[in-house]
Amino acid sequence: MLSGRAPRRNTAQSQVRGSAIKLREVSIIGIGQTPVGEHWDKPLRILGTEAVRAAMLDAGIEQPEALYVGNMLSGQLLNQENLGALIADHAGLSGIEAYKVEAACGSGAAAFRTAYMAVASGLCDVVVACGVEKMTDTLTDETAGALMAAADAEFEGEHGLSFVAINALLMQRYLYEFGYQRQDFANFAVNAHRNAVNNPNAMFRKPISADAFARSKMICEPVSLLDSSGIGDGAAAAVLASADWARSHGRRQVRVAASAVATDAVALHDRGDVLFLRGVYYSARKAYAQAGVAPSDIDLFEAHDAFTIMSALSLEANGFAERGRGVRLALDNEITLGGRLPLCTMGGLKARGHPVGATGMYQIVEAAQQLMGLAGANQVANCRLAMTQNIGGSGATVVSHILERVA
Amino acid sequence: MLSGRAPRRNTAQSQVRGSAIKLREVSIIGIGQTPVGEHWDKPLRILGTEAVRAAMLDAGIEQPEALYVGNMLSGQLLNQENLGALIADHAGLSGIEAYKVEAACGSGAAAFRTAYMAVASGLCDVVVACGVEKMTDTLTDETAGALMAAADAEFEGEHGLSFVAINALLMQRYLYEFGYQRQDFANFAVNAHRNAVNNPNAMFRKPISADAFARSKMICEPVSLLDSSGIGDGAAAAVLASADWARSHGRRQVRVAASAVATDAVALHDRGDVLFLRGVYYSARKAYAQAGVAPSDIDLFEAHDAFTIMSALSLEANGFAERGRGVRLALDNEITLGGRLPLCTMGGLKARGHPVGATGMYQIVEAAQQLMGLAGANQVANCRLAMTQNIGGSGATVVSHILERVA
Repeated sequence: MLSGRAPRRNTAQSQVRGSAIKLREVSIIGIGQTPVGEHWDKPLRILGTEAVRAAMLDAGIEQPEALYVGNMLSGQLLNQENLGALIADHAGLSGIEAYKVEAACGSGAAAFRTAYMAVASGLCDVVVACGVEKMTDTLTDETAGALMAAADAEFEGEHGLSFVAINALLMQRYLYEFGYQRQDFANFAVNAHRNAVNNPNAMFRKPISADAFARSKMICEPVSLLDSSGIGDGAAAAVLASADWARSHGRRQVRVAASAVATDAVALHDRGDVLFLRGVYYSARKAYAQAGVAPSDIDLFEAHDAFTIMSALSLEANGFAERGRGVRLALDNEITLGGRLPLCTMGGLKARGHPVGATGMYQIVEAAQQLMGLAGANQVANCRLAMTQNIGGSGATVVSHILERVA
Repeated sequence: MLSGRAPRRNTAQSQVRGSAIKLREVSIIGIGQTPVGEHWDKPLRILGTEAVRAAMLDAGIEQPEALYVGNMLSGQLLNQENLGALIADHAGLSGIEAYKVEAACGSGAAAFRTAYMAVASGLCDVVVACGVEKMTDTLTDETAGALMAAADAEFEGEHGLSFVAINALLMQRYLYEFGYQRQDFANFAVNAHRNAVNNPNAMFRKPISADAFARSKMICEPVSLLDSSGIGDGAAAAVLASADWARSHGRRQVRVAASAVATDAVALHDRGDVLFLRGVYYSARKAYAQAGVAPSDIDLFEAHDAFTIMSALSLEANGFAERGRGVRLALDNEITLGGRLPLCTMGGLKARGHPVGATGMYQIVEAAQQLMGLAGANQVANCRLAMTQNIGGSGATVVSHILERVA
């Protein structure tokens, strides 16, 4: 059993307020993804199309009713918006409902959330959610500058903070408050790289040692290169259907047991306690209540490990660890595939790569792979409940999903 | 009765496929807006907050469960994304579900669509949809360049087309195919300006004459300045609630009778017939079916008159006019407040102003004003059904809503 802030148990009905209506059950019936990497030969619409068509093929469907696209940077880096219509058309689906959803680095899961609502409402039976990002056609400085749009432009960006610097402030404070050393975070990165080796879609498929982490080049003290996730291009997609539709059409299902979004102040200085991610706490609390589970019920967690400090902080605010003890899960090797809470089982943002607006969909696709028993050498034994958490900004928009194996 | 492509009548249930579930009824219970203009003294988060708080005050609510923000350009022009969390926090709602929705110039109504799904699904009882845009802090060239993100960057933008030029191509072809003169479009602009005079939130509150239209400076032949909507800053918002909640809490209601999105190819050259807006046709057909109405039942239409040619083309594809006869509704003065189909009753994009990502919400707020009997000197007599249509790109993403007066 994991310790921590276990919310009151509750039923799925707790999300349905003051009304006789019952939410429809929603399932994932197909998944698709491109490798994460430097896809200089593939425009964004092609990456998106590859993931969408792969998911449709996997689900055995030819005509979804809607497509929701998660993306953060296409306007800034490619001068291309209207991605819903663009990808729908290129994927041969022109005419259907489609639009883009944005929540900075949390865009992918927010698109999945929107797709979930479309099916849960009864408006649609079968829809596609896709996350797509193209970050390597532009110079690194330009891409890094655009990423600052996830933070507060007027009160953080204008004053010279970069997104790495924001995470460095958080990590430095964490070290100071709780008495850790930088090296105590090593296993977050070591674990992610170890898991990525067996993921053919991961960007960095090589193991790293704790020694390599110790020697890693400093980016913004105390955040080193190996604390940080890699920029990349990629797309991932899932087909969602009502459970009734999936059953009556004989499709394999992964149940969406919970879908929840919560927010916090965007700027660090607007938060009462920068080391407690309130958005994570609220988002997880809603998700646990909807699924009727506690943190200790979760069999694997796809964490938003954009930086190692985000892993530690989100483990704590999610109730997987007490305050100041998130990093201990890594130190104590609890986060490996055989540990108490396997983390980032296909490489996480750190080693699979972090194409920002696509990441949330990669997390969901990877969790579905685990629950379908398709994770290959990285398969977590007997997993029933997987949690994914996609974070926009340094904790500002938090999108949590709990997925459940359907026997 | 208006002529045209009247779809088969149908019931609201037609949108609900293969399931016993019934969509919850959704109502607008409050509206808010800022004037459209050059708000150099107000950052985007303040504009958004003003509209959100005004709508909440109007609805008499203190804590919505979610906020969906429609916006197109904040990343490109302000290096600010993550607007859901940003505006929720500034509006005193930090913690709630919030994210941004983007569909180019159709972003505002797409945010409303998302809010509609959140309530229709039973996930939420009371939510806010907000559209916000800030376009005048940057140089006009930069803003105009960013707007090209609504079109196809790789196949239109890269080759030098501007967004005005795309509309000029459409208008030129229309003149050629159907034998009109440029001046035949005058009444679209004359009507919009006449209506804006009585709208305190409109950007251009002065009437124009057909002569002024004839003499208007050419921007990109045959599109003149007075064919074109004006760039501006602004925000508009609405509070949505389940009809049950609204009834049991004694709130004034405007019923959302239909909410529909459809798409078409983004680039003009990818469309079979550039003069028939297929996305408009599909979007309207879905909306009419959901509401169980025909075009002839609509009492007023908030058209996406970004350019006069878009008014003509959308009137046709919506079934308000036969092909090649959309412009005749203007010529024959059918579009005035007392005409058969009052158009852009508070000034439309042309004269209220077109803060792109906010426009869809302005349209919905204005239609609600009419149905609540709050349109002042511009009140359309005995209106029961209002249609709004927000278009992203030159017809690529089309978001239609039909709103109904609740007696």
